[in-house]
This record gives sequence, structure tokens and C-alpha cells, in this order.
Amino acid sequence: MLNFEFKNPTKIIFGKGEIHKLAKEIPQNAKLLVLFGGGSIMKNGIYDQVKNALVGIDWIEFGGIAANPEYAVLMDALQIIKEKKIDYLLAVGGGSVIDGTKFLAFAAKYKGNDPWEILKKSIRAYEDDTLPFATVLTLPATGSEMNSGYVISRKETKEKLSCGGPGLFPQFSILDPEVIRSIPKKQIANGIADAYSHVLEQYMTFPTSATLQERMMESIMLTLQEIAPKVMQNEFEYEAAANFMWCCTMALNGLVSKGVPTDWAVHSIGHELTALFGIDHARTLAIIAPSHYRYNNANKIGKLCQYAERIWNISLENNNDKAELGIQKMETFFHSIGIPTRLSDYTEEYLGTAEKIQQVFTERKWMLGERKNIGPNEVLEIVKMSY
Amino acid sequence: MLNFEFKNPTKIIFGKGEIHKLAKEIPQNAKLLVLFGGGSIMKNGIYDQVKNALVGIDWIEFGGIAANPEYAVLMDALQIIKEKKIDYLLAVGGGSVIDGTKFLAFAAKYKGNDPWEILKKSIRAYEDDTLPFATVLTLPATGSEMNSGYVISRKETKEKLSCGGPGLFPQFSILDPEVIRSIPKKQIANGIADAYSHVLEQYMTFPTSATLQERMMESIMLTLQEIAPKVMQNEFEYEAAANFMWCCTMALNGLVSKGVPTDWAVHSIGHELTALFGIDHARTLAIIAPSHYRYNNANKIGKLCQYAERIWNISLENNNDKAELGIQKMETFFHSIGIPTRLSDYTEEYLGTAEKIQQVFTERKWMLGERKNIGPNEVLEIVKMSY
Repeated sequence: MLNFEFKNPTKIIFGKGEIHKLAKEIPQNAKLLVLFGGGSIMKNGIYDQVKNALVGIDWIEFGGIAANPEYAVLMDALQIIKEKKIDYLLAVGGGSVIDGTKFLAFAAKYKGNDPWEILKKSIRAYEDDTLPFATVLTLPATGSEMNSGYVISRKETKEKLSCGGPGLFPQFSILDPEVIRSIPKKQIANGIADAYSHVLEQYMTFPTSATLQERMMESIMLTLQEIAPKVMQNEFEYEAAANFMWCCTMALNGLVSKGVPTDWAVHSIGHELTALFGIDHARTLAIIAPSHYRYNNANKIGKLCQYAERIWNISLENNNDKAELGIQKMETFFHSIGIPTRLSDYTEEYLGTAEKIQQVFTERKWMLGERKNIGPNEVLEIVKMSY
Repeated sequence: MLNFEFKNPTKIIFGKGEIHKLAKEIPQNAKLLVLFGGGSIMKNGIYDQVKNALVGIDWIEFGGIAANPEYAVLMDALQIIKEKKIDYLLAVGGGSVIDGTKFLAFAAKYKGNDPWEILKKSIRAYEDDTLPFATVLTLPATGSEMNSGYVISRKETKEKLSCGGPGLFPQFSILDPEVIRSIPKKQIANGIADAYSHVLEQYMTFPTSATLQERMMESIMLTLQEIAPKVMQNEFEYEAAANFMWCCTMALNGLVSKGVPTDWAVHSIGHELTALFGIDHARTLAIIAPSHYRYNNANKIGKLCQYAERIWNISLENNNDKAELGIQKMETFFHSIGIPTRLSDYTEEYLGTAEKIQQVFTERKWMLGERKNIGPNEVLEIVKMSY
């Protein structure tokens, strides 16, 4: 087990009908900006629940933070924060709104001239560097509601960069599984694939001696597989929704990866597919993961076999067969929730993609994976295998 | 899944050689009291590591906090805290030293005349009610290093009472698995039994829909079973020790029980065996648990079967047989680490014990268990079954 530090101070308020607790969590004297996305919260009643809970608090709102939160949009929000002397932020949304809010919490107090520097230079935010903020989660997927990381996109430069820091944990996050009632099935599927991929990135390295962490990660994958058909069906099942929501949070709140190596190559490559084709983030992960695991079979064989055995009860004798069958089961799982796993399922213009992404990684000089042995040439092969 | 709130702000610093990090975690201007137990830290080098890390900090020490931390001893420490204007506490020890330190962190700022009131009236401590404190864990078992509860004993009145509150999370806890090298095997066995029992208290109720939490609890039990023979052998294995240490913390840091019913009857009854006979806390749990589960077989049958299946791979058709075999496997596990599971293994004067404990619960008017249906008469039967 690797040495580690772990601290996660976010307060989770979980359960049916808990949005009203905003009232007692937000300081009464706060000057609050409520941030949200495309307006779905107006239709599903969440906006009204938030509004009712905020009676007596001085607040204004900023809507329109879409998926892959856009730097230019956030700059508009930043201007409002400064003009109106906002001192507390509340994200009402999914990972994109929350990620955008994290960036703003830091940018609002950033002393440099150009806030984009934060991302370009990976400047971490510490406790006194940020405005306090909280979240009401409306779309389980990214785990952003209980971690301190965020990803911001910039159309102008076709960049998608991530950053974070201990000053960027939400003060509190309200997780009411009832919000899942009104989420389109496509987005629920994305949430499942996203959370499942988060676990894979922390799990599919090599067998470690961190037995408890590995079993906890297996617990999340098994639970996601178990509840996936229930949350994808038309009838709403609260209990399945609650498990789905809690799995998404636990998959990326930092706990399960403590003391173990992590990969994250799938995310790095997947981000480029979103940048090039606008494919939903979670779907890019389902495209890249199987090819990544097949290409790196030799290095990951031990963990691929453990995955096949413990997650899919596969007991073949030959390890390569076992690993391959595990990967096929993974693909079948993604397909079962309506998520194709080939780039050609999403775009006809896939030829040349591998070379373009190879070029990006050549320029960035990034080496990926738990062994940092995946360079531009390996990325080329992995993306080609995913066509 | 039940609605829940979860917040655990303790920073964990985990790993080999990490005790030196005390230096950067304790405020340089602190007036520090270092608390410890019977002096084993003098022999195993931990005292020296702590001392070296505290160079430049103004600190004094208070030793002699034994197992089942005694109120009278803690009152001596309280006097020192007040006289010397101590403003930060550091527990270097196991659950008893840490529990005693938590009580002192609250008692030091308590305005009432008699600090025992805190326990008698179950007065919870909130953030501003306590001195900040931290821990260096020397004996994995209770999980006290990452939770906000504590148990204090008072010989004078033969009482053992528990309390807690959100103001009683350690600021940070340093967990170096190397400390396990010098722990006597009997205490390691107690630690394993204690952590395992903590999970059982949160798990062995009825099957819930909180799939993830149940699987995480099963992960802890499976890991403890896996590493138990390795940490009990003479040769020190760092990786097994690290898993053991992290399991103990995860078993009772509040996470796995969120959203599920809990029992805790075994602890309530077990405490009385410690009060009457001085039997080690963890061993009282191993005495009571099997009888408790057998006596409440009808109410717990679903979870007993899940335990038998998932933890011991038992696939008998008859549920009663399956549950009973699961309980026998649990007993065998306790025996495998040298922990007997009958009261008569610990004392020849066991006759009449059940009636004495029945009397205690009659006076306290407590109803125990996840259904609050275990009163004095049920306690009588459970204790008799454990002879």
C-alpha cells in the first residue's frame, strides 16, 4: 500500500426531500450567486425547491452553464460575482455546473491578470484562496459534488483542462435521489458509464496489496451493474436511484484510490474525442477503455483477470482468454445501457483521429498511465483500435 | 436507503515513516499536551519519533491513561490542561488514549460544575465547544482516530458511558502501520475482533436496499479475514499490517453505516461484561455476538444468510442451517485468532451474570437493537446463551 493523505471535509446531505435543508446550511448574511445549466431545473421543480429554501437570503442567479463548462461563459459569471460582491456560490446542477462553480470560486479571488493561467499553469487552490460554495446535485455522474477537482473547456483554443486543490471541496452537497426522476435516460446512461469508468481508472492497473480499497472499488462496479437496468427502466425506483447516486459520489470522492496506483489515460485520451467531435464525456470513456485495456494487456493482465473473476465470475484457465472475456463483458455492460463502444458508432469522420490525437500528445509531452509509459505512439495505436 | 448526513473532516496521514509530519500539522504557537498510555511508546521508539517531530513546539506530557480510560485519571489531566493553559491535545496511543483525549477536549471548555454530567446527560460537543486535538495511532482497533465518539469508564460507580459530537473529530491522525511491529499478539487479536464486530453491528440487521454500503462492509470483513493470519504470525508483514490498520479505521469512521439501520446491542451488553469482570472490550463482543445472532435469528435471518453466502460461500438450501453455519464460521474465525467465544472461557464465576446485566438494563430502561425490541428479558436470555 502506498503512503497517502486523505481529507474530505464536504458535508453530504443525502435523501428524499432534503433540498429544504439549504436554509440552515447557507449563512444568513451570505451574498449568494446560484449557478445552473440549461434550464431543466425550471421544469422539474428543483428551481422552485431551491427558491423556497432560500427565502430570507440575498441571492441572484446565473444560468446557462452547459456541458463541458465553457471558459467564456464563466467569464460572464465572474464579472457578476465581482460587480455584485458575491461571497458564496451555490451550484444547482451536474458535474459541469459544479466544475464551473469551482473554477469561479478560485477565479473570484485570483490575483493574476488572466484567470486562464489557473488552468494553463495548473495552479492549485488552497483553503484561503477561494469563495465558499455548495452544491445541489441534479445529475449523478462525475463525483464533483464531493471532490476538489474540475475540468474547464475553451472553444477558442479547443482546450479542455483540469485542475483542483484542497480549497475546492464544496462546503456541503445535497443529494436527493428524487432528482433522477426527470433525467433523460441518455444522461442516466452517461452517469453510469462515467462513474464506472472512474472506478476503472483507479482499479485497472496491477494487483496491489491494498485489499480493502480494491474490494471497495469492486463493490461500486458490482452495485452499478446491479442497479443499471433498474435506473434505465421507465418506472422510477427510488432505491435503485439512491444507490446510483451514492455510487457516483463514492467513485470519485478520493477515498477508494488512496494507497493505490491510478491510470487516468482513458480520460486523457477521451477528452480529445470530446474536443474533436463533441462526443459526451462518458461515451468517450466507453470508446477508449476497451482498446486501452486490450493494448496494455501485458501490463494489466493481473488486474484484468481479477476484474474478470470478481466482477463477472469468469473462471477460464488461460489468463489472456480470461482478460479478453472480462473486457467483452465490460463492453456488453456499456451496450446494455445504450452506450456504443466504437468511435465509428459516433462519427463517420473517424479516419485520421488517431494521428490528430497523437499530435496533441506529442506537443504536450505527456506520458500516461500508472507506469507513465504510454506516449504519443501508444495513444495512436489505442485510438486506432477503437475505430 | 435511509436519509443521512455525513461529514468527516479528519485528515488521515497514512504510511510508513509518517510520524515526522507532526511537525508541519501542529500549529507552531500551540501550547500542547501529549497524552499516552502505560509507557509502551517509550520502548518501541514511538515516543522518540514524536519527540523529534515536536522540536520547537511548547509541549508537556501526561502518561498513564490505561485501557477503559478512567474518569479519575482524566480529571488529573484536566487539572494540568487548566493550570498550564493548554490549547492543543495530542493523543499518542490506541482507542483508550484517544477516547480519553476527546473527553478532555470537551471537558476543558465545559462550563458546568461536574464534567461527569457530559456523559450522564449525553451532552454532545459542537465545533466551538472543544480544544483542537490530533492523534498518532499506536494500536489499530476502535476507529476512534477518525470518528467523533468516545467511551469513558468510572470505577467508583462501575459505569462505562459513551458520548460524542461533531466537535470531536481529530484535526488529523497519523497512521503508520510500522507501529504494529511491537504490538503483542493478544492486542492485535483484540483489534481484529473489535473492528470485525464494529462492522457486524452495522451490518447484521436485515437486508437493506443500500447495496453499496452492504458490499463495503463485506469488503472490510473479507479483508480482515484475509489478513488476520498474516498479522498474527511472528514475522511482520507491512502490507498485511497496513490493510489491518485501514480496515479498523474504515470500520468505524461513520461511512459504511450511512443510510442503513444499525444494531449495537452487542456493544451495550459487552460493556457490562467489561464492567463486571474486566474482560477486554473486543473479547466481550466475541462472547455476546454469536448468542445475540442465534437468539435473534428470526429477525436477522435475511442478513445472516447474506453473511453466510457472501462472506463464507455457504450455499445450503435451508435458511436456518445456512444462518447457523455462518455463525459457526464467525466463531471459528474468532477462535483462529485466539479469542474464545464463551463467558465461561474467561471466568468461573459466570453464573448469575445474566441476571445482574438484566438488572442493569431494567434500571436504565434501554431497549436495544435495530428494532429497539431487545429489553432486559431478552438480554437475560442472550447472556445465558453465551455461558
